[in-house]
Amino acid sequence: MSARQTAPGKLTLVGLGPGDARFLTAEAQAALANADTLYGYGPYLDRVPPRPGQSRHPSDNREERARATAALAHAAEGQNVAIVSGGDPGVFAMAAAVCEAVDAGPPSWRSLDVAIVPGITAMLAVAARMGAPLGQDFCAVSLSDNLKPWPLIERRLDAAAGAGFVIAIYNPVSAARPWQLGAAFERLRPHLPPTTPVIFGRAVGRSDEHVAVTTFDAADPAVADMATLVIVGCAQTRIIERAGRTPLVYTPRSPSEANK
Amino acid sequence: MSARQTAPGKLTLVGLGPGDARFLTAEAQAALANADTLYGYGPYLDRVPPRPGQSRHPSDNREERARATAALAHAAEGQNVAIVSGGDPGVFAMAAAVCEAVDAGPPSWRSLDVAIVPGITAMLAVAARMGAPLGQDFCAVSLSDNLKPWPLIERRLDAAAGAGFVIAIYNPVSAARPWQLGAAFERLRPHLPPTTPVIFGRAVGRSDEHVAVTTFDAADPAVADMATLVIVGCAQTRIIERAGRTPLVYTPRSPSEANK
Repeated sequence: MSARQTAPGKLTLVGLGPGDARFLTAEAQAALANADTLYGYGPYLDRVPPRPGQSRHPSDNREERARATAALAHAAEGQNVAIVSGGDPGVFAMAAAVCEAVDAGPPSWRSLDVAIVPGITAMLAVAARMGAPLGQDFCAVSLSDNLKPWPLIERRLDAAAGAGFVIAIYNPVSAARPWQLGAAFERLRPHLPPTTPVIFGRAVGRSDEHVAVTTFDAADPAVADMATLVIVGCAQTRIIERAGRTPLVYTPRSPSEANK
Repeated sequence: MSARQTAPGKLTLVGLGPGDARFLTAEAQAALANADTLYGYGPYLDRVPPRPGQSRHPSDNREERARATAALAHAAEGQNVAIVSGGDPGVFAMAAAVCEAVDAGPPSWRSLDVAIVPGITAMLAVAARMGAPLGQDFCAVSLSDNLKPWPLIERRLDAAAGAGFVIAIYNPVSAARPWQLGAAFERLRPHLPPTTPVIFGRAVGRSDEHVAVTTFDAADPAVADMATLVIVGCAQTRIIERAGRTPLVYTPRSPSEANK
């Protein structure tokens, strides 16, 4: 295939961040303004101010692969198409679904201009609200088992906690699987001191924001819903109590010296 | 301590993202505009447009704790102080150093308003340039061993690769320790197929941007410098070659089905 066969269409995946316009980057604002057509989960599309002449295609949250395919087909017609994504498109969001669809789709889709505009993913927004809980090595694990087997998730939790990683948990529960976060906590329990800080955060920057810290022995998995991001600290993670202010939670940069 | 003793000073840690103004969030721009005083590593401060009446205190990259202490002392005088940070302040950057300084400092510092403005951290920016390499569970590991022992780093690399995490490597080498990334690759080698994609990225969004993908058997640790972010895929990570375009690199959402 020669370069002149490159198609004119463009597909841009735009990370909206956690939900408030203050988290939008300049690049994301420009990409939203320049698109002819927007695809996305309905509540994410609702965050984007309407623009005359720009069409919108809302879809359900679980239809990621179908949304990716529809948006690619639309871009292949020569349109400038954007898919909006909560947080960052590359972190448990739309970018992998789009790459899967390109890989499985017609060869012509490989000549499309596919661009990804990064955004503030939930673990960064929740961490920022509380201090520096991700201050050391950390990992991000999704507890959704509709795309991977639960025993693999358990193996990853064991490996991460056993090696002292702070763990950011995405998709902690769902309507169909309310048991996941509780099962994950039981899996983590042998690895962690009961005083290990655990943060529950949701809707950062929105009117219903709720971010709070507790300890592992007091952490109730039932307070999480599907939009909650959970950060489980490591043995070194500390809570600084502050009179008249919310506590600061941080993981020291050095595992052997919390204060030096 | 009663609430009325809360000090008027404020310290804000501002994430600048990878280096170009397009990655700044609206919240970061506002925080920079409102500060009386800016602290930070010199090259990061140079990215912020000057404002009359705003003082600047550049310092060396390795003086994180001293910079945090100076900025807290300045805020405690009642000033609105900001510390600028590359990427996200909470990911191998200034937020943990500030929390450490608060924890070790005078009790009055606990009444200061400490705010953290998240930013696009390097692994998100580099991943976005290449597709969706972080499309599954992933971790972030710093190879800097001036704050933690090298054997702990090795244990974390073993745990992460053994459980199938994609690994984002920060601080892969330094002037004093040019051997780290090569040693890390040797540690990872028994866990990974030779065709596993490896991404080297630096200076995303700047004029000297360089982001490229290779395979594990061909990856040369000598191409990395201290500003490089390395993403080591897992066994499922794939490269989509594209005529006339850079390849897409992604990790399928499901470890058992790359295409469905």
